[in-house]
Amino acid sequence: MTETLLSARNLAFELYEVLDAEALTRRERFAEHSRETFDAALTTARTIAEKYFAPHNRKGDENEPRYENGEAVLIPEVKPAVDAFLEAGFLNANRDFEAGGMQLPTLLSQACFAHFQAANAGTTAYPFLTMGAANLIESFGTEEQKRLFLQPMIEGRFFGTMALTEPHAGSSLADIRTRAEPAADGSYRLRGNKIFISGGDHPLSENIVHMVLAKLPDAPPGVKGISLFIVPKFLVNADGSLGPRNDVTLAGLFHKMGWRGTTSTALNFGDNGQCVGYLVGKPHQGLACMFQMMNEARIGVGMGAVMLGYAGYLYSLDYARQRPQGRPLDNKDPSTPAVPIIAHADVKRMLLAQKAYVEGAFDLGLYAARLFDDTQTAGTPEARQQAHELLDLLTPIVKSWPSEFCLKANELAIQILGGHGYTREYPVEQYYRDNRLNPIHEGTHGIQSLDLLGRKLAQNGGAGLKQLVRLIAGTCERAHQHPQLDALRQPLEQLLNRLQGVTLGLLGDMATGKVNLALANSALYMKAFGHCVIGWRWLEQAIRAEQGLATASEADHDFYKGKLQAARFFLTWEVPPCHNDLALLEARDDTCPGMQEGWF
Amino acid sequence: MTETLLSARNLAFELYEVLDAEALTRRERFAEHSRETFDAALTTARTIAEKYFAPHNRKGDENEPRYENGEAVLIPEVKPAVDAFLEAGFLNANRDFEAGGMQLPTLLSQACFAHFQAANAGTTAYPFLTMGAANLIESFGTEEQKRLFLQPMIEGRFFGTMALTEPHAGSSLADIRTRAEPAADGSYRLRGNKIFISGGDHPLSENIVHMVLAKLPDAPPGVKGISLFIVPKFLVNADGSLGPRNDVTLAGLFHKMGWRGTTSTALNFGDNGQCVGYLVGKPHQGLACMFQMMNEARIGVGMGAVMLGYAGYLYSLDYARQRPQGRPLDNKDPSTPAVPIIAHADVKRMLLAQKAYVEGAFDLGLYAARLFDDTQTAGTPEARQQAHELLDLLTPIVKSWPSEFCLKANELAIQILGGHGYTREYPVEQYYRDNRLNPIHEGTHGIQSLDLLGRKLAQNGGAGLKQLVRLIAGTCERAHQHPQLDALRQPLEQLLNRLQGVTLGLLGDMATGKVNLALANSALYMKAFGHCVIGWRWLEQAIRAEQGLATASEADHDFYKGKLQAARFFLTWEVPPCHNDLALLEARDDTCPGMQEGWF
Repeated sequence: MTETLLSARNLAFELYEVLDAEALTRRERFAEHSRETFDAALTTARTIAEKYFAPHNRKGDENEPRYENGEAVLIPEVKPAVDAFLEAGFLNANRDFEAGGMQLPTLLSQACFAHFQAANAGTTAYPFLTMGAANLIESFGTEEQKRLFLQPMIEGRFFGTMALTEPHAGSSLADIRTRAEPAADGSYRLRGNKIFISGGDHPLSENIVHMVLAKLPDAPPGVKGISLFIVPKFLVNADGSLGPRNDVTLAGLFHKMGWRGTTSTALNFGDNGQCVGYLVGKPHQGLACMFQMMNEARIGVGMGAVMLGYAGYLYSLDYARQRPQGRPLDNKDPSTPAVPIIAHADVKRMLLAQKAYVEGAFDLGLYAARLFDDTQTAGTPEARQQAHELLDLLTPIVKSWPSEFCLKANELAIQILGGHGYTREYPVEQYYRDNRLNPIHEGTHGIQSLDLLGRKLAQNGGAGLKQLVRLIAGTCERAHQHPQLDALRQPLEQLLNRLQGVTLGLLGDMATGKVNLALANSALYMKAFGHCVIGWRWLEQAIRAEQGLATASEADHDFYKGKLQAARFFLTWEVPPCHNDLALLEARDDTCPGMQEGWF
Repeated sequence: MTETLLSARNLAFELYEVLDAEALTRRERFAEHSRETFDAALTTARTIAEKYFAPHNRKGDENEPRYENGEAVLIPEVKPAVDAFLEAGFLNANRDFEAGGMQLPTLLSQACFAHFQAANAGTTAYPFLTMGAANLIESFGTEEQKRLFLQPMIEGRFFGTMALTEPHAGSSLADIRTRAEPAADGSYRLRGNKIFISGGDHPLSENIVHMVLAKLPDAPPGVKGISLFIVPKFLVNADGSLGPRNDVTLAGLFHKMGWRGTTSTALNFGDNGQCVGYLVGKPHQGLACMFQMMNEARIGVGMGAVMLGYAGYLYSLDYARQRPQGRPLDNKDPSTPAVPIIAHADVKRMLLAQKAYVEGAFDLGLYAARLFDDTQTAGTPEARQQAHELLDLLTPIVKSWPSEFCLKANELAIQILGGHGYTREYPVEQYYRDNRLNPIHEGTHGIQSLDLLGRKLAQNGGAGLKQLVRLIAGTCERAHQHPQLDALRQPLEQLLNRLQGVTLGLLGDMATGKVNLALANSALYMKAFGHCVIGWRWLEQAIRAEQGLATASEADHDFYKGKLQAARFFLTWEVPPCHNDLALLEARDDTCPGMQEGWF
């Protein structure tokens, strides 16, 4: 049977050959798990994703949420899907057994979740947002807040959102205007407008818990004056029962290019001065709290981008195998039968590029999830700290690289299907439209590049960077021992060496006040850095494939050969052009900042 | 006032500074024209495009044609727009005065038409297809066919289509199955199914004239057995009046990702065995005839891709000027006011890239139109032949380069608008969706690259290529005389030199039977070749700008500085990475053809 969401063989390769998921079962927290329980969870995820999520993916696109009497109305297929997800326990995949969770490693919960992301980005967003909001309350909420809001979220009765963006301030959170006035009872009264709030209204849960950024009256200006609040759609009584409607109104829905299954809302807080909110964490510390959620969200967004790319890749691969058209270029005899288009070199190029982007990013996303597990459960505090530093550094890449290159994969999938790919009778154009959101939300591409170059590199004295360089060098060293892999090692090593020099130079410039020019070409830097990371992950995959080949069955032999060819594609086609980016960075090229506004 | 379709200053620069449109008025055919008549035509085009085409661009997208009782129903705004276009004479802009035309050079008619392409791709397609079909009958039709079909098309009473694609054969015309049997009266009876026929049905004209490819009973196999037929929706009596409905039925409409204003139809010919067609040109010569239309269509498609890119660029530029957000990177004081986002280096990068793509491709499209004029009206047969050879060579680039890079411009426009750009409340996401068709129709990207490398380069003993190399070298020579331009000349010259070596090597391989490997990476070749051509056009623009600066007014000074900066961006950011493509071509890299189907 053709796989439509992801390749189970590739997932097993990642989990058990590359990332050694079984080693996690030797940690106390996961001691009751085994490869069998992992695989059972994955099978459940795939089954539910195929049965409840995939079938209404197109319908959700064609019937976007409607605004009716102040509420958002969805197609009826969404609720049973989300219910099946909840019932199978995926909302709490990582939570303790005692809290009703599956106590799975994040590596596994992310792998489970990937199936839903591939099947239906729109519907999957509702539980995704809820998980993020719940984790936030778990980390920073009071016991009372946990009882009243977190517990019903864990039970799937309340859903969550993150409400950051305001009409005049998208990326610039420093400038938000939503205000929170203290009330006599210790709660707050909020007033302000938020836009682009995903899942900001829907009929899927009893209540919706908005995690809202706002400013207290005594707030210092800028990001240091932002506080975090719980603002429920319905107030919650002390016994946990629902109270009256809070003063949060759905001002309208946005109509998007894609990802239409998820409501994107404009919310008004406190139109009547009665919007009740509860402070989470300390005053003015809201952004730091929110960043925990955002960092998780960014990894999730990256994986979402991967999975839309993956679904498009698999669809176009299947199409290319089935669709006969044309003949080999050296065969001019029209009486011979047409060949499947996968036989054409240019179609192979488009498939191989998709495979290289999608499977490279898939590996990185799962690697990041594995790192997250290490931050929680690695054997020593040092190991946990190290994982934390490396994950921090990689987060902008985990988010942005798939958003750019798995989107590019979607473009190639459309191209392989030709005129058919351009019609809505086939799914690939929707994958592109859905995926186009990913370089925008949860921190735009530009924001990620500034986060990487202007913040993450120098964090903790550059500890994350040093670790990464050591890891990549180690991989190169191991590849060097396989004569077949040496040609793949070289371009990576050359890129890494030059990237290190560029990095030191730019950090030096920033330290000496030349911030604007050092950061001007952050997009180029992120491109080269990202390709270095993905090139590294491909070399790791290639080493495992080379090892696997020795004892492989026939089917596995083909699988490993495909891995080696995709690694070759990435490392010899995609990595060398990054030297152009580095050359511009070395020259501190000022073409872009030097362009005057009046010259456009 | 903000310009929304294209920059009038840039258009004037192209016409009167770069391409010397006034020189055309010294040719006999255009002797009655002058810069004044040219400008009057352009003003009319802009006025009608703004008044009748642009306002329903979004509405046409949101209300795609409906299938009702065997007919396609459009929104009511389309007809008045097309009527205004017809009334102003743009359908016959190039035709003789005596035939009711404006006798404009193609350079000018293309420039006029560009306004409509920017304003509304969907509505503009109807007259565009009609012009192509009319030209085909004019070139190859009998006098009777011209009287019965061409004349009403010129009068705007009949519209046209080109009906090539069949369900089982998209790019592979060799495999079409539509048959044409000779009838006793000298006409033919057609039977077959066509898909993706743009404008295949609509209520805009009295009749629709389909130009259909089909095979005669004695046809040799493959493309040498294809004939061309006129198949009208309504039969036409000998006196020109409409007869009964022909046996052509609208089987259905396709629902596309974008370009929704244009009906994309499935047409059945001869379901009842009564589909009357008339042979155009000689039997089995249909593809050669159709290629005339396709070559014009490809230049038109390229310009269409440019103009969607242009509209997106202008919109995002205006947005970036208006939208305040964030502060300079070296200003951490949140109490200072936010700056317009155009002040941020990364936003400038995205604007400058759009400008480089869009204005580079705009120049090339108009240059191609100017060449077309030379094929018709240059002073000597040799000059006409030369223009023909060069245009033939450039056609795949004129079609494919904007389809790829002005589409990329559309992606950047969305990114600049952020979350807003992703909503359908703003026009930029539609520009992307509309433009996404262009790398697919009228010969996919892959087909164009094979046309370039496998056919056009060697045509006429490589005469077109030799000419192009001479022209680029001449431009480099002139740039060498401006010290300020030398840094821009160098990357172009380096690329040109290496490209020549690669080209000779690949042509040699093809001549010695190594066709498959020589053509395997045709996509890389087309990328490098296209960038060389656009780099050349940017260097030409830079020379004119440098000359213009000497005596420029203040506004012109800014305009020329912008040109120089965009040239710098293209030549120093975009051109050097092509060496990676050439290195892979030099190595006859077999990563893609070497990927086995079973390895995916």
